[in-house]
Amino acid sequence: MSVFKELKREAYEANIALPREGLINLTFGNASAADRAAGVFAIKPSGVGYDAMTAEDMVVVDFEGAVVEGSMRPSSDTPTHRRLFLAYDSIGGVVHTHSTCATSFAQAGRAIPNFGTTHADYFCSFVPVTRKMTKAEIEGEYEWETGNVIVECLEGEDPLSWPGILVNRHAPFTWGKSVAKAVEAAVALECIADMALKSLQLVPDLEPIEAVLLNKHFFRKHGSTAYYGQPVA
Amino acid sequence: MSVFKELKREAYEANIALPREGLINLTFGNASAADRAAGVFAIKPSGVGYDAMTAEDMVVVDFEGAVVEGSMRPSSDTPTHRRLFLAYDSIGGVVHTHSTCATSFAQAGRAIPNFGTTHADYFCSFVPVTRKMTKAEIEGEYEWETGNVIVECLEGEDPLSWPGILVNRHAPFTWGKSVAKAVEAAVALECIADMALKSLQLVPDLEPIEAVLLNKHFFRKHGSTAYYGQPVA
Amino acid sequence: MSVFKELKREAYEANIALPREGLINLTFGNASAADRAAGVFAIKPSGVGYDAMTAEDMVVVDFEGAVVEGSMRPSSDTPTHRRLFLAYDSIGGVVHTHSTCATSFAQAGRAIPNFGTTHADYFCSFVPVTRKMTKAEIEGEYEWETGNVIVECLEGEDPLSWPGILVNRHAPFTWGKSVAKAVEAAVALECIADMALKSLQLVPDLEPIEAVLLNKHFFRKHGSTAYYGQPVA
Amino acid sequence: MSVFKELKREAYEANIALPREGLINLTFGNASAADRAAGVFAIKPSGVGYDAMTAEDMVVVDFEGAVVEGSMRPSSDTPTHRRLFLAYDSIGGVVHTHSTCATSFAQAGRAIPNFGTTHADYFCSFVPVTRKMTKAEIEGEYEWETGNVIVECLEGEDPLSWPGILVNRHAPFTWGKSVAKAVEAAVALECIADMALKSLQLVPDLEPIEAVLLNKHFFRKHGSTAYYGQPVA
Repeated sequence: MSVFKELKREAYEANIALPREGLINLTFGNASAADRAAGVFAIKPSGVGYDAMTAEDMVVVDFEGAVVEGSMRPSSDTPTHRRLFLAYDSIGGVVHTHSTCATSFAQAGRAIPNFGTTHADYFCSFVPVTRKMTKAEIEGEYEWETGNVIVECLEGEDPLSWPGILVNRHAPFTWGKSVAKAVEAAVALECIADMALKSLQLVPDLEPIEAVLLNKHFFRKHGSTAYYGQPVA
Repeated sequence: MSVFKELKREAYEANIALPREGLINLTFGNASAADRAAGVFAIKPSGVGYDAMTAEDMVVVDFEGAVVEGSMRPSSDTPTHRRLFLAYDSIGGVVHTHSTCATSFAQAGRAIPNFGTTHADYFCSFVPVTRKMTKAEIEGEYEWETGNVIVECLEGEDPLSWPGILVNRHAPFTWGKSVAKAVEAAVALECIADMALKSLQLVPDLEPIEAVLLNKHFFRKHGSTAYYGQPVA
Repeated sequence: MSVFKELKREAYEANIALPREGLINLTFGNASAADRAAGVFAIKPSGVGYDAMTAEDMVVVDFEGAVVEGSMRPSSDTPTHRRLFLAYDSIGGVVHTHSTCATSFAQAGRAIPNFGTTHADYFCSFVPVTRKMTKAEIEGEYEWETGNVIVECLEGEDPLSWPGILVNRHAPFTWGKSVAKAVEAAVALECIADMALKSLQLVPDLEPIEAVLLNKHFFRKHGSTAYYGQPVA
Repeated sequence: MSVFKELKREAYEANIALPREGLINLTFGNASAADRAAGVFAIKPSGVGYDAMTAEDMVVVDFEGAVVEGSMRPSSDTPTHRRLFLAYDSIGGVVHTHSTCATSFAQAGRAIPNFGTTHADYFCSFVPVTRKMTKAEIEGEYEWETGNVIVECLEGEDPLSWPGILVNRHAPFTWGKSVAKAVEAAVALECIADMALKSLQLVPDLEPIEAVLLNKHFFRKHGSTAYYGQPVA
């Protein structure tokens, strides 16, 4: 029996949550869960339908990119996930979707301003959009370079305070302490993008939320002063 | 057995109605039901998923804010609910959601004009948006102060004729004679906000509904002249 | 046993189709089916939830407005249905909804231009919006007068070629040879309104469909030259 | 037993996928699957509801337009499907829908610009809109001429690199190697149209995606350099 059975189940649960949460069309999108001690992550196989997939189909890849376990090709986006796991020690899961509203911002090359407390509960600031990738990056190790522009864009920031980003012309990536948290961030991001689109329809030059209210909400859920939810046992 | 079993069941039914009605993403939102005679209300526990929750998990809090029954922390928004129950003797339930369209108006700091009979069937006028909260209010007893700005905004008005409001930069609160009525107001509010967004797309400077038609619809459903629905037994 | 059992079943099936088709929020909306020979129609009881309702609950009303069978009050909109049945001999069913996009046009006081073949398959022209009602009409026999402004607006037209209308500041009414056809028109109307909103976003001054294409599609489905669907046995 | 049993099942599965994927309202839309060796295709019967339909109801038509098998009339759009099968040897299935966002572009007479990688994964360029049809074409063999304007619009292009089109004032048609691929293109097209509408709301004069990124994504999934998905056995 696979020593990665639990890791694969965790990745599988995250992957099938994506269409259930309305974040996925067709076979777009993928989720991965890392086991830091073992130096591997489990990820969706490439181009396989969410209905047909089982936990056993998850592909286990090490941090050098070699397939450790699995009979199928891993997601074509695997190098992006790998780049993020290498850059951010504090994260245990990565999610990529083409969810409609977040992708509409990414296509338009616009960051999502932080307009309200729904946004502030999840992100310490706006949701950034990466710079456009160069011809060399696109024609080179494209998926690895996608990870690089993300890391470049968030340089010096805590990835757990900025749990997602929009890749220019492409779509969102999110992450978290666990892959379940990365799924939660992907749901929140789509919800935030939908509301931001509608708020911008109402007030095209709407200013972002005031810093004091942003911080109140963000730190109600994050860090040592958090008081939202139940105490950790 | 809990003497609050029925009250907790009522609060529970209202809470699980919120995701079913499409008003909730993630763990945003909460509903509470008051027992005026006992001087308490039952409310959702903080940060618990709607799927996992049972009626038994509801937390019973008294009007001074002390937990009377329950093993979990009550919703972090409990002081807002408590403030509303104290201010409005006529209400038996409060609902808070981050429903998409209503929250988009709240984020934009715009009241929802009363554009048609769908709106007029539930609200005697526009849906107001509160003033922005001050730094002192946000950094002080934030959730209690959230209740205060709601009460300030509706000063002198009958809360049953104004069964909901938008908290600036935040999201809607609704209420009613019972928590079931507060849920109904939350559904109506989201529906009204969606239609108002679309009517504003068609006619950006659309005038509100004429007073005579507004009153006709509002009083078809409210007060001694109501003739909508079945006679009360 | 009721001699109207089949008529009530027909009205019931139409009423419960409304929330299933996403045309209804809360208890808004109602459908009625007429039996011309018996001089009656069956309609939804007022303010009753769609989940709780049974076929037996439908109220049978005659064309003078008297309840012939049923223990509950008929829909408050009954006089509007009655007015339409009296004006239009060719119709066998009426549907009223507050479906989101059609109601957004009604609230804005804008007719829905006929922009494409989806629209032309159901309506021989644009979807009209009634004039605003006068103070006297609103404060008088309001629901009957609602029927009157519809009939006034369509004067001289064949109601089966114009199977629906928007009541200004209010919402849509549709009708058809049978109540099932009236439901179909209500579904088509919401779909048409949704597409028109989006087409207007793309081209704000978009011209209506060319007459030759409109007529081609309308008469593909209507009248003696129709060739859509299966031959009638 | 029918020698076309498998072909009819394939067409049936594609047809019932359309409402399940949210691409269809009422009885709008149809799918067909071709058997090139037998010189026939199976298509939906005209005006039959998706719920009531069985695989046995599919109508088999030859490439001259004669019904080979089936007791019902084929879809009124059959000549359009036939025209496309005759023009494009490489396709095995055709799908027609009135999906909301794609139809909104078609009604507005606007092509869908290629704004991002979601689009580029399926289409090598923008999604074209046909020229308007002439009076003679509309009043003549309308459905056959609909196929003609599609073929005229894509003259000289590889239909598998342009797997769909918008018919002006009407709605989308898509196609693929198999009818399952044509359904996939129809789902992708609606998704692309939805995102394009929202990106245009954010940036009304948004430029299309850069060619190098478009090609990277398109050829990641198409042709000899494709590396998305699993190797073909």
